[in-house]
Amino acid sequence: MSGNRSRPLGVATIGYAFMGKAHSQAWRNVASYFDVPAFERTVLVGRDADAVAEAAARYGWAESATDWRSLLSRDDIDIVDICTPGWLHAEMAIAFLEAGKHVLVEKPLANSMTESAAMVAAAEAAAARGVRSMVGFNYRRVPALALARDLIGQGRVGTVRQVRVSYLQDWLADETAPMTWRLRKETAGSGALGDIASHAIDQVQFLLGDTVTDVSGRLHTFVPTRNGPDGPEPVTVDDAAWATLSLAGGAVASVEVSRVALGRKNALTIEVYGSEGSLAFDLERLNELMVLDGTVPVERQGLSRVLVTEPGHPYLDAWWPQGHTIGWEHTFTHQIRDFLTAIDTGVAPSPSFAEGLAVQRVLAAIQESAAAKSSIVTVGSI
Amino acid sequence: MSGNRSRPLGVATIGYAFMGKAHSQAWRNVASYFDVPAFERTVLVGRDADAVAEAAARYGWAESATDWRSLLSRDDIDIVDICTPGWLHAEMAIAFLEAGKHVLVEKPLANSMTESAAMVAAAEAAAARGVRSMVGFNYRRVPALALARDLIGQGRVGTVRQVRVSYLQDWLADETAPMTWRLRKETAGSGALGDIASHAIDQVQFLLGDTVTDVSGRLHTFVPTRNGPDGPEPVTVDDAAWATLSLAGGAVASVEVSRVALGRKNALTIEVYGSEGSLAFDLERLNELMVLDGTVPVERQGLSRVLVTEPGHPYLDAWWPQGHTIGWEHTFTHQIRDFLTAIDTGVAPSPSFAEGLAVQRVLAAIQESAAAKSSIVTVGSI
Amino acid sequence: MSGNRSRPLGVATIGYAFMGKAHSQAWRNVASYFDVPAFERTVLVGRDADAVAEAAARYGWAESATDWRSLLSRDDIDIVDICTPGWLHAEMAIAFLEAGKHVLVEKPLANSMTESAAMVAAAEAAAARGVRSMVGFNYRRVPALALARDLIGQGRVGTVRQVRVSYLQDWLADETAPMTWRLRKETAGSGALGDIASHAIDQVQFLLGDTVTDVSGRLHTFVPTRNGPDGPEPVTVDDAAWATLSLAGGAVASVEVSRVALGRKNALTIEVYGSEGSLAFDLERLNELMVLDGTVPVERQGLSRVLVTEPGHPYLDAWWPQGHTIGWEHTFTHQIRDFLTAIDTGVAPSPSFAEGLAVQRVLAAIQESAAAKSSIVTVGSI
Amino acid sequence: MSGNRSRPLGVATIGYAFMGKAHSQAWRNVASYFDVPAFERTVLVGRDADAVAEAAARYGWAESATDWRSLLSRDDIDIVDICTPGWLHAEMAIAFLEAGKHVLVEKPLANSMTESAAMVAAAEAAAARGVRSMVGFNYRRVPALALARDLIGQGRVGTVRQVRVSYLQDWLADETAPMTWRLRKETAGSGALGDIASHAIDQVQFLLGDTVTDVSGRLHTFVPTRNGPDGPEPVTVDDAAWATLSLAGGAVASVEVSRVALGRKNALTIEVYGSEGSLAFDLERLNELMVLDGTVPVERQGLSRVLVTEPGHPYLDAWWPQGHTIGWEHTFTHQIRDFLTAIDTGVAPSPSFAEGLAVQRVLAAIQESAAAKSSIVTVGSI
Repeated sequence: MSGNRSRPLGVATIGYAFMGKAHSQAWRNVASYFDVPAFERTVLVGRDADAVAEAAARYGWAESATDWRSLLSRDDIDIVDICTPGWLHAEMAIAFLEAGKHVLVEKPLANSMTESAAMVAAAEAAAARGVRSMVGFNYRRVPALALARDLIGQGRVGTVRQVRVSYLQDWLADETAPMTWRLRKETAGSGALGDIASHAIDQVQFLLGDTVTDVSGRLHTFVPTRNGPDGPEPVTVDDAAWATLSLAGGAVASVEVSRVALGRKNALTIEVYGSEGSLAFDLERLNELMVLDGTVPVERQGLSRVLVTEPGHPYLDAWWPQGHTIGWEHTFTHQIRDFLTAIDTGVAPSPSFAEGLAVQRVLAAIQESAAAKSSIVTVGSI
Repeated sequence: MSGNRSRPLGVATIGYAFMGKAHSQAWRNVASYFDVPAFERTVLVGRDADAVAEAAARYGWAESATDWRSLLSRDDIDIVDICTPGWLHAEMAIAFLEAGKHVLVEKPLANSMTESAAMVAAAEAAAARGVRSMVGFNYRRVPALALARDLIGQGRVGTVRQVRVSYLQDWLADETAPMTWRLRKETAGSGALGDIASHAIDQVQFLLGDTVTDVSGRLHTFVPTRNGPDGPEPVTVDDAAWATLSLAGGAVASVEVSRVALGRKNALTIEVYGSEGSLAFDLERLNELMVLDGTVPVERQGLSRVLVTEPGHPYLDAWWPQGHTIGWEHTFTHQIRDFLTAIDTGVAPSPSFAEGLAVQRVLAAIQESAAAKSSIVTVGSI
Repeated sequence: MSGNRSRPLGVATIGYAFMGKAHSQAWRNVASYFDVPAFERTVLVGRDADAVAEAAARYGWAESATDWRSLLSRDDIDIVDICTPGWLHAEMAIAFLEAGKHVLVEKPLANSMTESAAMVAAAEAAAARGVRSMVGFNYRRVPALALARDLIGQGRVGTVRQVRVSYLQDWLADETAPMTWRLRKETAGSGALGDIASHAIDQVQFLLGDTVTDVSGRLHTFVPTRNGPDGPEPVTVDDAAWATLSLAGGAVASVEVSRVALGRKNALTIEVYGSEGSLAFDLERLNELMVLDGTVPVERQGLSRVLVTEPGHPYLDAWWPQGHTIGWEHTFTHQIRDFLTAIDTGVAPSPSFAEGLAVQRVLAAIQESAAAKSSIVTVGSI
Repeated sequence: MSGNRSRPLGVATIGYAFMGKAHSQAWRNVASYFDVPAFERTVLVGRDADAVAEAAARYGWAESATDWRSLLSRDDIDIVDICTPGWLHAEMAIAFLEAGKHVLVEKPLANSMTESAAMVAAAEAAAARGVRSMVGFNYRRVPALALARDLIGQGRVGTVRQVRVSYLQDWLADETAPMTWRLRKETAGSGALGDIASHAIDQVQFLLGDTVTDVSGRLHTFVPTRNGPDGPEPVTVDDAAWATLSLAGGAVASVEVSRVALGRKNALTIEVYGSEGSLAFDLERLNELMVLDGTVPVERQGLSRVLVTEPGHPYLDAWWPQGHTIGWEHTFTHQIRDFLTAIDTGVAPSPSFAEGLAVQRVLAAIQESAAAKSSIVTVGSI
């Protein structure tokens, strides 16, 4: 597919809120730093005509549109980047894949297992026709975490045994924070679990290159009622979630997530303990990876703070000299780079929809376990 | 009981290994720093006559003995400090309490629930006669943790919601580390669970002034076989344990402990998230408490590193000027101080045997849950 | 000048290496995040026609050019952003200001005091005609440092007494690193002093809103000879520099900079101690500001880690939700935003050329002191 | 001198305030942990008969006395530990050395160069008769700093180039803190300089095994007047001091000390940058040493947090298992251990009075430089 393209790839992005803004930043900048196939920022899609037109102008898209279906038949659109809420993912992604468009979809893959499975089927069918798809677990593109995966893959921590992941935020710590669609099960599916534990679980599987086989889970809502437009309303999703996970390769991981952990703003922390070394990471300091080499004599052994800004670190040769840090948004630029490269080289991009589904399965198993008094549940194969 | 004593209290300590050495340090120094009733370090007890005699001389005990029962009838012994392995606690403690001796016993209270319950009964009967007893959860006497409890008690973190405790060590990370009695269920009862999760659980109940009502638990042994004197032998206790705990007051706590967390030497970490503030602690930096005041405007809000060395901090006015740190061993000195003060004032010391039993109940429930696929177990009342 | 412009401002940037790349990123993105007057990225200028054409395409400039003088007479150029080495600053900046172009020039202002003074004169003459100029001390636009200045200005640290600034790098720690023009006095002027102490000194004056009045300085070259193209060659600039500074308001600051501090990559650290509070910062963790409020009771007092990502923090409302960090490059985006806003509103931008000159004067005084056995030198008024 | 002693060494300590209390703790505990020659805590000396008698009882000395001269002729006193203010050191130390007593004297060696020189002469004369003397720079016995010296000595950081030392306290940050003898030049000699910069300078010379050859210094008093018993009174010593130091071996060190650095309680921080590695230390976290090995590939290189509690670390095999931290006071126990061992083995203890004098010379040079507009001063040989 690569090389003989007669024109730049046409790109459409659907959604212009938080994620649409972040993805737009990536599309706007990726070609200044990375060697990627030529593309054009053709169209930004949203429901409100005026607002999306203004967003398109602000974020640098050539045009705007309000009907996502209008893209299906457009020959000048090769790639669709779906940044809408989860309940819209399946319909859109499947339609675009069937129409021969490469699709990048924000995480989570979808709100239901049925939809997720249908998306995987569509993705596999499309792949047979050279049409690519990927789900946006952008934290795989944090250089420090990509480095962590490399180090684990090289055996530098030996056999991984124990993994600890937490993702702590505090935007719901204030009990007067109002009711929103995110706190209703019918619209959000789940609370902290689907929103941020999904990142945690994807990281466990990504870093270890392994698969969760069973889980025990617990969910809790600390503030059970919040004020909505019509007065007090029950919160029907979790504020916090806990799980232990068995991995096929023998490791055990714990996951804890929260939206009420006062003082933690975006604290995805990961600790990996192996037989020969260990690693630690905190998303609030995403330019750093703590690395312990267990083969150093114990008198000089300790967790080393590696500033992940060297040219030899993943993605970093494209940016600035050593010591000049990058930010959260750069993960999206790296994601677009990898997606474009995959399209260009014909290699299947990762994380695939199937990998996104694998995360959904673990989340579903945690919910099932939580509903069954935390009893261990085997992660299903649908 | 206080005040009209005609002679100094006579003290006996049983055991002179790790804990006996630490307790001896406390007995040797407490009166130099704290105003405590007069006492004498009368006798150190151990099984090996030569070794215990040498230890008594080294650690500053007036005499040594090999038969603990010989203390029962000695009028010059008022206090017995039991630093033996757990399986000896019940018999000794009950006998001494019945003989009218005040008893301090190392944690865990005992290896079985039956023994623990008998000890509580003996303690309560003795208390009616003015005979005091206490279990040695020394980390209650870390100044930073005593401060944490005070702050929580004052309402400075508001309603506690989420608590995260981990206790990570690495002395079994090396798979060639040999088999010991600590790794056999019949001698040790459990592994990391009883040894270090007991501290974690006591802290949860201590800091919150609350009671664990149900638990879900998981146990795992990462290195299932180790070399013993007669070749490879199965490890029959856990290397690591995980639990989630419900508290009566509505908080939820997680506990994770390990002996294979490479690079963590004695990392008891505690995070407390409340509606108005949060706290964080790490035993490897025991002179520090992180404190977040959620009522400060968010633009200036963050976890503050409080160096807990001020005269106004718990226990610190006895020691050195601000900024001059103390060590792990000082917790035992504080413990002895509190125990002596309780004896002197006639106030029941804490943690009582009943509090020690409460920890044992939680540990037993975790084991029960782990054996039942992590299903939530109600903490028993025996 | 604002409001009634008939067309977007035309922008030219001169230079496309490290700084040109960073400034291009800022020009490309600023309008997506901030409300700034309309502008066009008209032309990128460099000496090598092919290379600058490629850079223009990559970084998003409409055209490229090789002769900077060609811009002087172009009516479609309103702003010139000078990212060339220091020895070219004066000639360019003066010519453009006289031609009525607004000028942003990278730090340091110039390599000599004479040139710097001429630039200030040109800037002041231009300002009288509504033509704006600014020097690019981008670290003033680190949100945490802008917050620090605000807090100091509000009196939150009381009277500032002691300031400690260090800027440590390690790219010359390897003694086999080769000779370059940066290590020859005739081309570079000075070493670590001009390159990074300039940032340190600007921060001292910026944060305190105060002026350095006298200095004592020391310079040292740890690796006096390095291999050049023709064999070993003397290094004629400093690897490291130290200074103490008196400020007009009574504070005393220390500055230490190095290019051989192994393990420090871009560690601009700043500590400010006042009568009522203190602050600490490290550029390697630029999303954080440590804040101590000395009015809190000492038992709960400590340096708080404030994650500077709240909407109420300087510049942050334009970016991402709380906890989502930014990187080093964002300081340039903020700088362009402030420069454009100043042009639009007719307010003189800061730091002005005169402020750049003030930094040069301090650097010159440090060099003079270092040459006079560190004897204190009064900072000149030229 | 060792081995054939017919009775335990008799020890006298003079002074029972802060330092006397800390030294008493060391004498009380050293033999429980270290194999040292037998000794007895014979007498504690102070001016107030009642107070010193109470202190002797509390700290465990057999008797008390008020006249230090009474010790001179006592055959049962072999060692005198001088914990009095500096102005008393010379007279006492010289008298005891001449009387054949081994002498340990607190730092600083003395308040004047003349006294210091006389003490060195007395010490050298005594040494010829087998009588030992040592000055109490106790931070040499922080295990992490002893380890740092070992690592430097082994060449693990290569050639040391740049050293940064600060010692920051805040007990004078409050401008209402009252006048004391410590703030008058005639009683205290100097302020932060003599009190805490002395530690900083001893560490530089100790860690590097090198000698300061020249200095540039600056002194400053931020709060020039404080309330004394008779109203406002001028503060005639420094609140803060700064110096740069050249070392004979080619390194350059900076020293900054303060008593007004709000939030820093006892922050002796040390950074050592060499050609092959670097080290960092903070006394407020004295169980930790940061170690960077520059020979590790840069992608995995960083400052490692080594918890200095391993049996293989200096002094640690005597104490607790790994991960169980020690405190500030332990440095005195180590000091006594080393002093007793030196007496026992006949090896000259270190730091000798001559080493104490070497520190005084550097301090004197800093004062001289500060009085001469910071101009570099060669460190004298008296």
